[in-house]
Amino acid sequence: MRYRATIAYDGTAYHGFQRQSNASSVQATLESALALVSGDASSITGSGRTDAGVHASGQVVAFDLDWKHKTSALRSALNVNLPSDIRVLEIGEADASFHPRFDARSRTYQYRVYTAPVADPLRRMYTWHLPHSLNVAAMQEAAEHLIGTYDFSSFGSPPQGDNATRTVILARWDRADDEIHFTIRANAFLYRMVRRIVGTLVIVGRGRMTANTFRDILAACDPNRSGPTAPPHGLTLTVVSFK
Amino acid sequence: MRYRATIAYDGTAYHGFQRQSNASSVQATLESALALVSGDASSITGSGRTDAGVHASGQVVAFDLDWKHKTSALRSALNVNLPSDIRVLEIGEADASFHPRFDARSRTYQYRVYTAPVADPLRRMYTWHLPHSLNVAAMQEAAEHLIGTYDFSSFGSPPQGDNATRTVILARWDRADDEIHFTIRANAFLYRMVRRIVGTLVIVGRGRMTANTFRDILAACDPNRSGPTAPPHGLTLTVVSFK
Repeated sequence: MRYRATIAYDGTAYHGFQRQSNASSVQATLESALALVSGDASSITGSGRTDAGVHASGQVVAFDLDWKHKTSALRSALNVNLPSDIRVLEIGEADASFHPRFDARSRTYQYRVYTAPVADPLRRMYTWHLPHSLNVAAMQEAAEHLIGTYDFSSFGSPPQGDNATRTVILARWDRADDEIHFTIRANAFLYRMVRRIVGTLVIVGRGRMTANTFRDILAACDPNRSGPTAPPHGLTLTVVSFK
Repeated sequence: MRYRATIAYDGTAYHGFQRQSNASSVQATLESALALVSGDASSITGSGRTDAGVHASGQVVAFDLDWKHKTSALRSALNVNLPSDIRVLEIGEADASFHPRFDARSRTYQYRVYTAPVADPLRRMYTWHLPHSLNVAAMQEAAEHLIGTYDFSSFGSPPQGDNATRTVILARWDRADDEIHFTIRANAFLYRMVRRIVGTLVIVGRGRMTANTFRDILAACDPNRSGPTAPPHGLTLTVVSFK
């Protein structure tokens, strides 16, 4: 039976979602828990790789397993075998053909920015602290240029053999108490795309780049013109939507 | 010159605020940073001890220091010498007689409860996860019995030589997105008082104790009748107010 599970993790301690030979990954940790539960080596497929230090509240994974008990008991069994920084939130049976990467219609990421003179120790692992105020209206104006189907080469590189065209459905800045949150949804993302977009939009927010220049950088398809890459710890994969 | 500083810390890695001989404490870590900045051994006084694992967003401390530069430069100098889980938020000159414990008029604590079937890895260090729904109205009704000047022996023990009478000014449950927050303000607190109150109020929230029984437990001045002590990691010292 193929299962589909929604996973949340704190990426602080992991070198990304994807299994690596010499470093801890979310995927390998999930596979270890699955092996403990099933007594068998199982492989897990995710909806997307998250970089080292990036979090998830709605990553979707799939795996095949011969499980004789209730599906709800499988969730509990996995969670007791996982470290507390990874949790299986939901689990259900899926079609044998279900593939979390190929079947995903969109991915949504949220980036949290905290602007204050001093960082907040309680949020240091989940927000990008900037000791400057930001012009959110200007960042929003610039972000709206992202919506549509474009070559996003200015903000990231595609996997080998793929092109850089992606469709951004939503790109929005919101004030949330004393934080500023960027929500972006696209059919798929290039490597580091969200973090490079955020890094560049923050330059707009500081008044050092206009929204029109941001639009020109997007149109230029030139990775040398965008701003710095925002740090990974502000970023969370929040939703993966399927057909 | 005496300085007064507002401090925030993530208590996860510390055995409480107060210096201990064999374990890391917030106080000793602050004193080390102060010694690095001043080249001198300095001692720090806090407004209150927080237990091991308890956080603070508004602890107030005082210390004496011979500092020749601007006060704002002292904040920066301390922060670069502190680990990222402790931050000096504000700093200012104080009267030579200022004492953060004796001069404090009230302390405010917040306790965060997260109710969902599965814990959230991104909030595991800052919320008490309960896999049950809670009756917030019942918890609020019970909490209102706390307001006033009472002997709080049922919920904690006083320091040696002190009595257990305290004045609770505010005790309120609020829904905050998908969390439930308890805010309590008192002139001072007994050892573990907030956590024992929260542990008992959660029993009310689960429908296993009435608000009237809660009131009777308070009146009984009997520590054997209250509920379990809520875990430290949900608790944050948020505000200390002064005369």
